[in-house]
This record gives sequence, C-alpha cells and structure tokens, in this order.
Amino acid sequence: MSSEKLTKAIDLQHHLSESSRTRETSPLKGLQKFMRPGVTVLAGGLPSPAYFPFSNIGGQALVPESFPINAAESSSSSMSWLWNMFGSSSKKEKTQTINIPKYPNTPGELSLSTVLQYTPSVANPQLQKIMYEFSTKVFKPAYSDYTTLVHTGNTDGWNRIVVTLCNKGEAILASEWTYPSALHTVIPYGNTIASVAIDSQGMRADSLRDVLQNWDEKARGAPRPHLAYIVPIGQNPTGATMGLARKKEIYDVCVEFDVIICEDDPYYFLQEGKYIPPAERKRVAKQTALVKKAAAAEDSEHFIANLEQSFLKIDYQGRVIRMDTYSKTVAPGARLGWFTCNPMFAERLERQGETTTQAPCGFGQSLVTQLMLDWKYEGYIRWLRALGSQYEVRRDFLIDSLTEEFDMQANYAHTGIWQGTEYYSATPKAHLMSEKYGNKTMFSFVPPTAGMFVWLKVHLENCPRTVREDEEPLEIQLWAAVAEAGVLLGPGWIFSTNTVSGGPLFSEHGHFRIAFSDAQPEVMKSGMKTFAKVMREFFEQ
Amino acid sequence: MSSEKLTKAIDLQHHLSESSRTRETSPLKGLQKFMRPGVTVLAGGLPSPAYFPFSNIGGQALVPESFPINAAESSSSSMSWLWNMFGSSSKKEKTQTINIPKYPNTPGELSLSTVLQYTPSVANPQLQKIMYEFSTKVFKPAYSDYTTLVHTGNTDGWNRIVVTLCNKGEAILASEWTYPSALHTVIPYGNTIASVAIDSQGMRADSLRDVLQNWDEKARGAPRPHLAYIVPIGQNPTGATMGLARKKEIYDVCVEFDVIICEDDPYYFLQEGKYIPPAERKRVAKQTALVKKAAAAEDSEHFIANLEQSFLKIDYQGRVIRMDTYSKTVAPGARLGWFTCNPMFAERLERQGETTTQAPCGFGQSLVTQLMLDWKYEGYIRWLRALGSQYEVRRDFLIDSLTEEFDMQANYAHTGIWQGTEYYSATPKAHLMSEKYGNKTMFSFVPPTAGMFVWLKVHLENCPRTVREDEEPLEIQLWAAVAEAGVLLGPGWIFSTNTVSGGPLFSEHGHFRIAFSDAQPEVMKSGMKTFAKVMREFFEQ
Repeated sequence: MSSEKLTKAIDLQHHLSESSRTRETSPLKGLQKFMRPGVTVLAGGLPSPAYFPFSNIGGQALVPESFPINAAESSSSSMSWLWNMFGSSSKKEKTQTINIPKYPNTPGELSLSTVLQYTPSVANPQLQKIMYEFSTKVFKPAYSDYTTLVHTGNTDGWNRIVVTLCNKGEAILASEWTYPSALHTVIPYGNTIASVAIDSQGMRADSLRDVLQNWDEKARGAPRPHLAYIVPIGQNPTGATMGLARKKEIYDVCVEFDVIICEDDPYYFLQEGKYIPPAERKRVAKQTALVKKAAAAEDSEHFIANLEQSFLKIDYQGRVIRMDTYSKTVAPGARLGWFTCNPMFAERLERQGETTTQAPCGFGQSLVTQLMLDWKYEGYIRWLRALGSQYEVRRDFLIDSLTEEFDMQANYAHTGIWQGTEYYSATPKAHLMSEKYGNKTMFSFVPPTAGMFVWLKVHLENCPRTVREDEEPLEIQLWAAVAEAGVLLGPGWIFSTNTVSGGPLFSEHGHFRIAFSDAQPEVMKSGMKTFAKVMREFFEQ
Repeated sequence: MSSEKLTKAIDLQHHLSESSRTRETSPLKGLQKFMRPGVTVLAGGLPSPAYFPFSNIGGQALVPESFPINAAESSSSSMSWLWNMFGSSSKKEKTQTINIPKYPNTPGELSLSTVLQYTPSVANPQLQKIMYEFSTKVFKPAYSDYTTLVHTGNTDGWNRIVVTLCNKGEAILASEWTYPSALHTVIPYGNTIASVAIDSQGMRADSLRDVLQNWDEKARGAPRPHLAYIVPIGQNPTGATMGLARKKEIYDVCVEFDVIICEDDPYYFLQEGKYIPPAERKRVAKQTALVKKAAAAEDSEHFIANLEQSFLKIDYQGRVIRMDTYSKTVAPGARLGWFTCNPMFAERLERQGETTTQAPCGFGQSLVTQLMLDWKYEGYIRWLRALGSQYEVRRDFLIDSLTEEFDMQANYAHTGIWQGTEYYSATPKAHLMSEKYGNKTMFSFVPPTAGMFVWLKVHLENCPRTVREDEEPLEIQLWAAVAEAGVLLGPGWIFSTNTVSGGPLFSEHGHFRIAFSDAQPEVMKSGMKTFAKVMREFFEQ
C-alpha cells in the first residue's frame, strides 16, 4: 500500500481556507526557471556573506550515549544516581565538537554563508533530508507522496494550519481538556471550539462521531467542523496516550465526515511505559531484568517498533498533518520542527511561512543539523531511547512522592470514563485521617505512560466546604491555597475547552496538572508534602 | 518634550483589529503573581535543561574593526583592494571568541539553560536591554514611554502588525512600488492596497493627503485606511531615501487623518552618501580627504547625528511602529529584529507572538546577544560605520560599470517626479550608436544614497518595437531577453502595488531593480556589459 500515491485519490483542495487559496508564491520564485550554472543574479537583494560577522559557529555537544538506556535499572542499587541525574551535574560530561564554518573546505558540507543567508522557507537541504528520512523510518506513512516541511515549532505550525485550513467563524474539534495555547491561537481568528469528550486514551471516537453527526449548523453558527486538533501521546494536560486501535476508530470517523487531523505530537519520544508502584517495582524489575537487558541490546528498529504508532501509519487518504518538534528532544529554544503531510497542504503551508517567519533561524538550523549529521540517525535514536527512560524515572519519582503522602489505592475502572483502565485514588494516610472526613477519596488519577504530566482529578464532591456567592469556585480556592503555601500547580480550568470558549467549568471536579519534567527530586518531594498538608486542611476543615 | 509620556494623550486603542482585541494573555501568565523566591513550580511543563545536548555554543566572531571606516578612501590607490574586499578572502580574519555555556559560572551571564528553554515571547533580558538602549541612543524617540519588543525578522513583524491593526477588507497605504512580500502578506487576509505616488524621496505627502482626503468608501469597498507601510531609507525597490522634512510632512498628514505608520527600516545603516562619478571622484576625494579624516576620527555620536533620522524622532503621538532587523547588519538567517513603538501596541504584538513564533530561536538569540555584549555598543556602531562604507563602494562599482557601457548624462530635474533631484540618463555610446536609434535615452535613474538597489526606469517609449496581441508586454520581453543572455535583473512589475492588486502595470515605462549588494565586482561588470548589449539589440532592432 505504501507505494501508492493515495493523496491523489481524494479531494483535499476544498479544505483550504479562502486566505490560503489567494496566497501567492513569492514572485521572485518565477525566476527560478532562468537559473542555470553561470547565470548572473542581480535580481536578489541579499547582503554579502562577507559581512556575516562569524567565521564559524559550533559548540560542545553531548554524545548520544550520555544517558543510560534503562535509567532506573542501571542504577537501582542506590538513590544517589537520581540526584546526580537530575542536577546540573558538575561531573565531566562527555562531549563532541560541533563546527560549522562560514566557508567549508569540502563541498556539500553545511556552510554558514548559505544557512545565514535569505533562503526559501524550507530547511537547508541537509535538514530537509534528515526530517524526511526520520518521518519515513519512524512513522512509516501509509502512502508514498507525503512531504516534510520545516516550521519554527509546533505553536507556529498550528497557527499556520489554522490559517491554511480554516475560515473565520468555523469550529475546530478538540478534546475537552487541551493545550491552552492551541486554543488561544484559534479564538482571535473568530473560530470556536467543538469540544469532544475524552477518556484515558484521550479523544473518544464515539463522542467525536456524536459531535459530527448531530452538528446543528444553525445552533452552532458554523458549518460542521473539518479540522480536529489532537495531541495523541502524553496529551497536554491529561497525560493520556492514544493506542493504534483508538486512532483507527478516530480516523474512520474522520474519513466518514471528511475531517482533517492535526496530530500535534511533541511528547512522542517521552513514552515511559506502565507505572509500577515502588513495592512491586523491585520484584518486577528482577523479573524483567533479562527482558530489559535484551531490550537494551536491541537496535533502533526494535525500539521504534515498540513505540505507539502515529496517525500517519494508518493515513491512507493523506488527511493527517503531523507535527514534530525538537523542543522536547533537543531544546524548546531551537524553535524548530516539521510537518509531515500531503504535498498539497505542504505547499500551502510553505507559502504561509514565506510571509511570516520565512525559514527558521539559520544559527539554530545549522547547530541542530550539524548535531544530527554528527550523531547520525542511530545516534539520535540512542539519545531518544535514553530520554524516554529519563522521563520514566521522573514520572515514577513524582507518583512515588504522592504515594508517600497519601494512602494510594490502585483500582480497575469497570465503568465511567476510565473504563478498562487502572487508576489510583488517594485518601488520607490512616494515622492522619480525621474522624469527620474519614477515608473518602481526595483525588484520583491514571498514571500516564508518556509525556510530562500527572493530571489529578480532585474529588471536590467530598469536600465539606460550601461556597459563598462572593467567593471563587472551590477549585480555584484550593489551587490558590496550594499556591499560597508555596507550590504552583497547573490550574485545571485553563485547559478546559469549555472555559476558553467563555463557558463555565466543564466538570464538577477540580483538576490540577503536575509537571514532573524539570523539577529537582527534592523539590517534587517537598512540593507533594506541602500539597498533601494543604489538601488535608482544605478537605478536613 | 522627550520626557513626556505622550502616548497617553491620544487614543490608539481604536486602531486595534477585532482579532487583536480578543487575543488573550496566556493563562499561565496569571500565575506570575504567585512567583516568589523559593516557590515550587510544578505548573510548567518545561523539559529539563539537563537534556539540552549542548554544554556550550559559540564561535569565532569578526572584530568590529574588520572593515575600514572609509573603504574607498583607505584603498583608493589600487583596485586590488576591491577584489579582496568582495571575495571570500582567504586572508586571515581577525576574530574574537564567543562563548555561551549552558551553566555559566558568573551570575547574570547569558546561559544556554535559560535561553534554550521556553521563555516569554520577549527576548532574553540582555538582548531586551541592548535593543532598548540602541533605539534610545540611535533613534531618540520624541516621547518617553516607548517600548522595544523582539520579533523574528521584519517580514514576521509586518505580518504581526497587519493582524494586530487591520480587519479583513481594510486597505493599507503603500508606495506605488513596494517590497512584494509586504504586499503578499496583506492580500490573503482580504486586505487591499491603497497606492500612493512616490518621487525621489519615496512616498509623497501630497499624494498621501490626496488619497486620504478623497477616499471614497463606497467605491473602494473599505473604510479610509489607517495604516501606512513605509520603507524610508534605501527603499525597496526604488532605492529612494526620505529626508526628515518629508517625514514631517507625511507624519502631519497621518496625524490629520489618524493613520498609523509602519516604518520598516532594514537598510537604515546602509546609508552611502551621494554618488560621485568616477571622473570627479578623485578630485572630490582629495578635497574632502581632510574632512573625511576628521569624520573617521569622530565618535559614534557624530556618526549617528549625520544619518537620516527615523520617524520616531518626530513621533510625538506614538503612532509609529518602527521595525529594525539584524538581517542586513549581522545576517538574514539570524531571523531577529525588534519593534519600537508605544507600549499598548507592543503588548498586543507580544500576545500575537505568543500564539505563533513564541520567542525567537534561542541559539540565534544567544549568539547575537553575546556578540553585542562582547562588541559593546561602540563596537557595533564601529561595525555599522564600516558596513555603510562597504555598500557605498559596491554602489559606486555598479553605477561605474553602467557608466562604462553607456553615455551617461547627469541631469537636474526641474519638473516631474524627480523634481529638484539629480538623475542620470543613459544613451548608447557614441561609437556604438545606430543611425536609426540615435541618442535617445534608453533608461534613467536616480543614484541611490542608501540601500542595495539601483532602480532603472527604462524608456520603452523610445523603443521602436511594436507588440503583437499574442506577445508579452515590452517590459517583460526585454527582461526575458536579458535573462536569456544570462543576467537576472529584478523585474519591475513584481514591485508594483497596482499589479499585485490585480491591475495592469502602473507605468508605461519599464523598470528593473539591480542589486549591488552581493555580486562579485567582475560579475557586476560583465553583467552590465551583457545588459548593454541586449539593450542595444532590443532598442535598435
């Protein structure tokens, strides 16, 4: 199947916005046909590279093997590793030298004189190749004429997608809890959000079908949506990860109702596996030691095969625009990522880039490109394997810290939105339990298998407080109490597509997003201690 | 005057677009008030800097004195300097080492761990300070509460201005010949161009008043424009430079009709002075040698004082949004520049940045910032002084090359669009003149005093060719003939605001834009030889 050019089979053109249809190619591009060796170009208006004030740039890059493949495993004999790993360790890092000269001696090498010049709004050729090969090898699109196109980070990428595909007033499908910046991009253009219910795997296919099937154009003041925004792995804020079966269900609904999918996947390589409670971890670790050892020895192909798969894998109609970014795998400041999508959308997205960001920063492009060239594909995959493992340890540490402060019970959900999933519910520690409050659940959560966040559902229905009319809702009061005590959690309501659209809070529960991605372990630990203290005071007043 | 906060005196709020009014601050910004030393932040979602794969970045930067202050002067005894200067000289450049560590030892130093992290959509504090001080010292705004805000290059900056100030369907004032990318940004948003006539100083104040005063809302299908796009120095494509008196006239019209001015000024530091023909150059050079010597010794304050001044200098109402860029003074690939404007617009422009580019690339930001920190203000000014001088030599070389191929006559325009200006008209060399064609003018131009371009007006009315219905217009035929002969010039019609709006060519003349910014001298020379040959064949058929 993957050798067929399937994007020609369906009509994608009608998805383009009015503005995108009228967006023209830069007129100087018309001159390309006159370009041939030896032609004299006085048409440009480029500054001379002689005046670029750098002879070369570069730096010391970590080697791909800087972190172990199985972080927890390789150092489980002591806790000291953790403190070393998290900190700005003063131990000597093993590095390799990155260098990009203005005028390289070898043709074909990355050259500052080129990459710092005005360039088309695509990446330098080396990076183009890296991105294309990466998407091919890792995501294995289901059709053959897909394209990759550089952008300056997924936030800019999403903005370009909205401008390219949506007219003013149209509604966009998004999960009931979503990355707020994605929503704040949309609202000022006069677009609205069509909220879709989620469960432990993120967006629900039945809810998506429901929204589309029962769309009331008159009541909603907009035609049926034709664009869905989905963060499928380690979703922000809920941490939910969508398996391939769910993706297929979602995709089928999108085929039926002719919806384009934006797969915004920044956390793809932060796949952390199942959370094992500390009491069982050692036993499980022992049991799986041999398996893990074997896994560590596996090549990149096996590693890739064991990751959740992208929508691209099942996109036989070219209706997925996938966004990848170096923000979580290199650094957010790289402001560098890429689309993988059908060539027609890619061409329009490129035009949109020409009149906004143009090509991404040449300094960043060249440093990241040279890093990838020096590391090679296998080196970068090695880096990514270790990265997922690092975040696994962080995730475990945060949940362990919560478990130390509460009585934590693993439950299997037979009904409700977590049906078929294991979740944890937290009650006060037995010796701290007040008679009045008893052992009612304070919060519950599904341990994430990917990403940076634990998403707590706070059971405010078990809180005896009443709210006066002049007071903020309980959720906000509780958040503020934790903040006053010195711990800032992600406030749930800012992620609600309902709140962003100007409506009331979506849920009677409170929600907090806790990030385990960057805090030092002692900070997470003391933060959870403080959180527990405030929770008890708040629920047991 | 400059101590007064004058932006409060007039109402700027009503200029904001609908979309800009509804654009919200990122909700996480609301958490700022809870930030205090020692607070535990688990609200973010930042990757750990431990995983940024660079221990440090840096490079070898040219020293500020790399090029002479008076390039032509300091080496006028021989031509060899020119070939050295233009080329990718293999002579040892004098450089200084730039270094940005991930974790600097000294507090307050630029740190990769910070600049490569997610940051607010403003620059790092050091760069913010550099930009603000630069605008203050160089442009001396007429009111005190102006703000500077980083952007990712003037193209992105202009896009942000349009989205922030214009509703769909509104018209934007622009010169009859304008940078096409600025127009192609505007058109897809459903905006149109209100074309304003130019002369040798760029946009004409009387034409601007005319357009505004006689604006027919019904006929134009849009309210009277409230935004003007102006490239005041070395305008693209005409090379025109606007003096302060003209700026005052334009500004007064804008006050009267409540128009916001976008001052897009990428060529500001490529101010080259008056073109002196080669025959006189030596004599003039001798006469002014002492003056120039004195000028060379002058400090940066004198240099700044002798430059054309910015609209900011006379902007007593805060209605100017100035855009500066490092594209022409460092490198286009830096994708880095800044707005200087009133704080209310700056706040809205910042919000617009949050949902698109976010902060500019941290690799580029840190390298440019460290360069500026190491060079210091005086060093950067020294660099800019030399840069203008370099482009002066390039400008002279191109016009000299034209002069070698044609009989060139300096004329003083008593009437017409060049009234009060010296311009050159070109006729065939006497010994190459055909009897049939005689010595009629083939093209004319005003030698630019700034920028990168010579803008030729081609006198097609003197060309005996007739155009069949199935043929392209003469201008396009001529351009293609030059291109077929191996020389690509900037085709005039792509810069016409009339053409871009879908209308016919604005002028009965043809126009070509010739860039002298980056070609090697021998290439410019042979290019002009070829151009002359094709011109003769075309006009003397």
